[in-house]
Amino acid sequence: MGDANIKGKPHPLDPLRPEEISQAAGIVRESNQSKDIFFRAISLAEPPKIELIKFLDSEHAGNRDAVHPARQARVQAYIAKTLHEMIVNLNTATVASTTPLPGRHSFIDTDFMAQVAAACLADKKIQREISALKLPEGATVVVEPWAYATDGMRDMKDRWTMAWFYMRLSDNTDANYYAYPLDICAEVSNSLEVVKIYRLPSGEHDKLSDVGKEFDRRKIHSSSEYHPDLVQERRTTTKPYHVSQPEGPSFSIDENHISWEKWTMRVGFNYREGMTLHDIRFEGRSLFHRLSLAEMFVPYGDPRCPYPRKAAFDLGNDGAGINANNLKLGCDCLGHIKYFDGWLSNSSGEPLKMPNVICCHEIDDGILWKHTNFRTGNAVVTRSRVLVLQTIITVSNYEYIFLFYFQQDGSIFYEVRATGIMSTAPIDLDTTVPWGTIVAPGVLAPYHQHIFCLRIDAAIDGSRNSLVVEESHPIPFTGDTDTYNPFGVGYTTTSKVIDKEAGLDLDFNTNRTFKIVNENVTNSTTGTAVGFKLLPHYSQLLLAQPNSWHGKRAGYTSHAVWVTRHHDGELFPAGRFTMQSTGDDGIGSWIEQRKDGDSSSVRNEDIVVWHTFGSTHNPRIEDWPVMPCEKMMVGLKPVNFFQGNPALDVQISTQEKNRSVLVHGAGCET
Amino acid sequence: MGDANIKGKPHPLDPLRPEEISQAAGIVRESNQSKDIFFRAISLAEPPKIELIKFLDSEHAGNRDAVHPARQARVQAYIAKTLHEMIVNLNTATVASTTPLPGRHSFIDTDFMAQVAAACLADKKIQREISALKLPEGATVVVEPWAYATDGMRDMKDRWTMAWFYMRLSDNTDANYYAYPLDICAEVSNSLEVVKIYRLPSGEHDKLSDVGKEFDRRKIHSSSEYHPDLVQERRTTTKPYHVSQPEGPSFSIDENHISWEKWTMRVGFNYREGMTLHDIRFEGRSLFHRLSLAEMFVPYGDPRCPYPRKAAFDLGNDGAGINANNLKLGCDCLGHIKYFDGWLSNSSGEPLKMPNVICCHEIDDGILWKHTNFRTGNAVVTRSRVLVLQTIITVSNYEYIFLFYFQQDGSIFYEVRATGIMSTAPIDLDTTVPWGTIVAPGVLAPYHQHIFCLRIDAAIDGSRNSLVVEESHPIPFTGDTDTYNPFGVGYTTTSKVIDKEAGLDLDFNTNRTFKIVNENVTNSTTGTAVGFKLLPHYSQLLLAQPNSWHGKRAGYTSHAVWVTRHHDGELFPAGRFTMQSTGDDGIGSWIEQRKDGDSSSVRNEDIVVWHTFGSTHNPRIEDWPVMPCEKMMVGLKPVNFFQGNPALDVQISTQEKNRSVLVHGAGCET
Repeated sequence: MGDANIKGKPHPLDPLRPEEISQAAGIVRESNQSKDIFFRAISLAEPPKIELIKFLDSEHAGNRDAVHPARQARVQAYIAKTLHEMIVNLNTATVASTTPLPGRHSFIDTDFMAQVAAACLADKKIQREISALKLPEGATVVVEPWAYATDGMRDMKDRWTMAWFYMRLSDNTDANYYAYPLDICAEVSNSLEVVKIYRLPSGEHDKLSDVGKEFDRRKIHSSSEYHPDLVQERRTTTKPYHVSQPEGPSFSIDENHISWEKWTMRVGFNYREGMTLHDIRFEGRSLFHRLSLAEMFVPYGDPRCPYPRKAAFDLGNDGAGINANNLKLGCDCLGHIKYFDGWLSNSSGEPLKMPNVICCHEIDDGILWKHTNFRTGNAVVTRSRVLVLQTIITVSNYEYIFLFYFQQDGSIFYEVRATGIMSTAPIDLDTTVPWGTIVAPGVLAPYHQHIFCLRIDAAIDGSRNSLVVEESHPIPFTGDTDTYNPFGVGYTTTSKVIDKEAGLDLDFNTNRTFKIVNENVTNSTTGTAVGFKLLPHYSQLLLAQPNSWHGKRAGYTSHAVWVTRHHDGELFPAGRFTMQSTGDDGIGSWIEQRKDGDSSSVRNEDIVVWHTFGSTHNPRIEDWPVMPCEKMMVGLKPVNFFQGNPALDVQISTQEKNRSVLVHGAGCET
Repeated sequence: MGDANIKGKPHPLDPLRPEEISQAAGIVRESNQSKDIFFRAISLAEPPKIELIKFLDSEHAGNRDAVHPARQARVQAYIAKTLHEMIVNLNTATVASTTPLPGRHSFIDTDFMAQVAAACLADKKIQREISALKLPEGATVVVEPWAYATDGMRDMKDRWTMAWFYMRLSDNTDANYYAYPLDICAEVSNSLEVVKIYRLPSGEHDKLSDVGKEFDRRKIHSSSEYHPDLVQERRTTTKPYHVSQPEGPSFSIDENHISWEKWTMRVGFNYREGMTLHDIRFEGRSLFHRLSLAEMFVPYGDPRCPYPRKAAFDLGNDGAGINANNLKLGCDCLGHIKYFDGWLSNSSGEPLKMPNVICCHEIDDGILWKHTNFRTGNAVVTRSRVLVLQTIITVSNYEYIFLFYFQQDGSIFYEVRATGIMSTAPIDLDTTVPWGTIVAPGVLAPYHQHIFCLRIDAAIDGSRNSLVVEESHPIPFTGDTDTYNPFGVGYTTTSKVIDKEAGLDLDFNTNRTFKIVNENVTNSTTGTAVGFKLLPHYSQLLLAQPNSWHGKRAGYTSHAVWVTRHHDGELFPAGRFTMQSTGDDGIGSWIEQRKDGDSSSVRNEDIVVWHTFGSTHNPRIEDWPVMPCEKMMVGLKPVNFFQGNPALDVQISTQEKNRSVLVHGAGCET
């Protein structure tokens, strides 16, 4: 998105270009002269939806002179040490608004975290504790600072950091230090003071203590490495596998606009959500205004203090854009790959290039549809080509792979793959606890959850949509053969349109189906409202108590489906500022605040549907030392939106086109 | 499996070779001289499990002279018009046992169905009804005979066939006749007599009638074709996509034995289950003795007589082997493909070759695992190579694609894709019913379900296994900061070993997890029993009433997970003979019969786990005229079985090996 050299007027959905980032920073500096400014984020302030829709309608109607909404930047910065958010109008070169946010904390500041680590290692008390551990020769202590998840033990107006300690035993800096969690930890203040040092609990009923214990050298082992320099034995059985597209890919890309098969969309990127998708259409018909991963919460299930402080909002605290990987050709992506770069900013407000944060390519997904006429023996088969948009983030130990799949049949799938290394805690040998798995000697992989929220800003054939909950139920059966259901095998569906903003739950037992429909547009054949249905990922919701700090802060994790009225700025279901948050500005609060007013109505309105899903990750040893991807999949599928299978016209699959190769061998005669 | 020319001694799990089929038929003929014999099926009688295990243990211990169990065939035939099942010992050339099965019916006999269709078209009463329909000029009536699903209206000891009527309006025999369901239907006796003719109901409250109505010519339309000869407009936007494996595939195959990466297994094939998998091992360690699709039930939800008779057991009535497609290179399969042929038999007992019924190939499945060390910036990434075994069946209108995926990380996935054409019923224009979707003028696609059962004959590190139900629950929270769960965020798991044969249900809300474990083998690191867990497909179970005929006949559809003790011959959860069955020999009956005896115990025994799953298919118009694949996925994943990630040693992904191609374009600078 945004080649620095392109000079055309940006589309309203184009992320800020580097020169716009510089310009925004300059405007903020100018209006805050002589003040100390520490920039945190400079990103596109997407136009108010009402203006954006007007522009897009005009654009899609073929109007090349559609009036652009004001081009604005959202700037987050510490000004004189207080967090501020400003809207900067780039057209008028003015600061349109400034909101001071005392008591709120910005997302994780990597430089600060490095300072915390350094402060810990320089701290005399910590040095004494480390020395009391009597670590093996050659050990290098590694400090892993984490945001402090609110637990009621500290005033959250100050910024606190938890420092967890590991060691590596190899000179190789890529050795897996999570294999050696040490049993000390520290609380560090905003002024980099080590305020408290703990010895971590070991047994199930242990409490924090300050009794020093030596490192148990029987924990030293060699089975926890993953880096190729450190794992010598690699299988050689996997033969090369190449994808070639002699005529190139089937997509075409113009800046951040993608056309592929019958789809069009725009790709966005920002520091917090990472990849976002906008104005998604099929055959020119509007489907989704905006799709984005809106939050992710990762609470750990170990109840012992201080472990409840391990509970990360990986988007709100860390940022999917900031932590996006620089994807590598042939490694992260196979085939013909188009990469998109992103642009963020540094603490001085200078643009920071994030190369290759999104890759776009095609895959073959097996058979799309097939039918053999058994009377003629004639088979007709098509293969499914899928457009993939992939981004990968690293949040300390974990990796998350986020993938959107666009299919020729009009459906969209969103996949999350969790991989990387599990966050570990120390445990004494010959000890067990009921909230974790021992994956190596002295290494506890505690139970935890990953709870995501996909935000679906729907625009099914226009902005006014409704959410319908459909269920399949048996028709009552009396056993009387002269009734409506004489044989007891009939069933029908019930449909309920949701009237007010609400959190709703899944129920596969009734085949409960969530359809986003446009009640103003009737399918002329089926006679029903056009729509798309959500294919949810069935998963357990938050295990922490609703009245715990986790429950209050991550209220979105209490229901699997939410529907709200669209409001500009309501993008984050756990609130805009999740660092040390206390739970007052998430999706539950919005609904509560509006519940008695007209704006709580969601029938035939501009609505947003949110899907909360995830995984209760009770580690397996097979997830160690690096975890094979755990996949979660959500879908959006047309339901009586088109006039038939939208992939009916896909080319018939033939050997002439696909050029497969026959493998001969015993028993194979063709 | 089985090249006719291979003369080596067959492995006990090799399907019958053609010469063995001929031999078995000859032995049966000889022992039934002068009797009229109509062969239905001749397939391998798999050895008693106790003998088979002994052989396999010996084989895997490297004993090349392991004693082979008797090589036996299971022969199903009508002898003097009564169904019989015989076990034929091919070593001694004798009939080992003969079981007459009066009142039972064999699976669908295609020749007979063709005779039913011909009898209908030749029947004067039917000709009069057709003529009363006043069909458009050029119409060809197509009769679609279906097995009669038990509904209590006929004595099921006789064989009945329902004939449903359609027409096509094109000379092209591949025109989609399901687009013109006609409103007549007939019951045909075993002696090919048309016993009853109905006019089908149209409105919601209609009953069957004999009042003739003319075909409404306003129903004629052109939007229901799918065949390339009849759909002129095909998109040309999808560019070619080739897979090449310059060093060939990574698998090696010896007869029906497959080795791939760390996996070994044997592929079987029979008329009923189609593809079966046997003796599945990873690094030589036993995982699953046998995996098979055991049944599939497809009941329709339209309550009006005679539609409750539409309820097919697609395995028991039709057969996944008999209906297996001849897969085509480059069409059904992309890449380097190894095909397996199958051998069935005809009504004279002659071997019948089924070419290319199973394809074996590899796919790339994106990223397998990745980690970036944020301290060094070094990323390590591996790609997931997957072994695919695919078979496709056509059951009248529908196609089912069955896929086993073997992964490098020790997990197995089983996917079902439903595609093909929906079975339709006539409906008057301007009429609706609450159990179907109108997909074209006068074409009702009724609600229905597809309910599958995957049979998992587990052998986790040996034959004696247990089923454990694990759930994740919050630790109670008192709000008191000095308790076991001071912050209200802790959770633990509860585990229950199932003691007796039972049907069990899914519950994602408690993260209910079904683990098959071997309590005799403890993982030395985790300290827990080695196991594999089921990743179920969450879906609604049978909507028909438990006391309806559907409920009684398909009892396996009342629970999502079943565990039984292994008994030879218990392969089919709706019973061995499903045609017009009355529900006395399915999984529920087995459990009921054994419930008070020792053999109901399933803890640390030779157990079988069954997973019932499927889809409540309330049609979308997007499923018409041919349905894009609907996917269902089930998984089996190691849980504390290995000593770490079994895919840790997969080669690191590099551009040198993978040869991806960079797509240039605006905004892409690398």
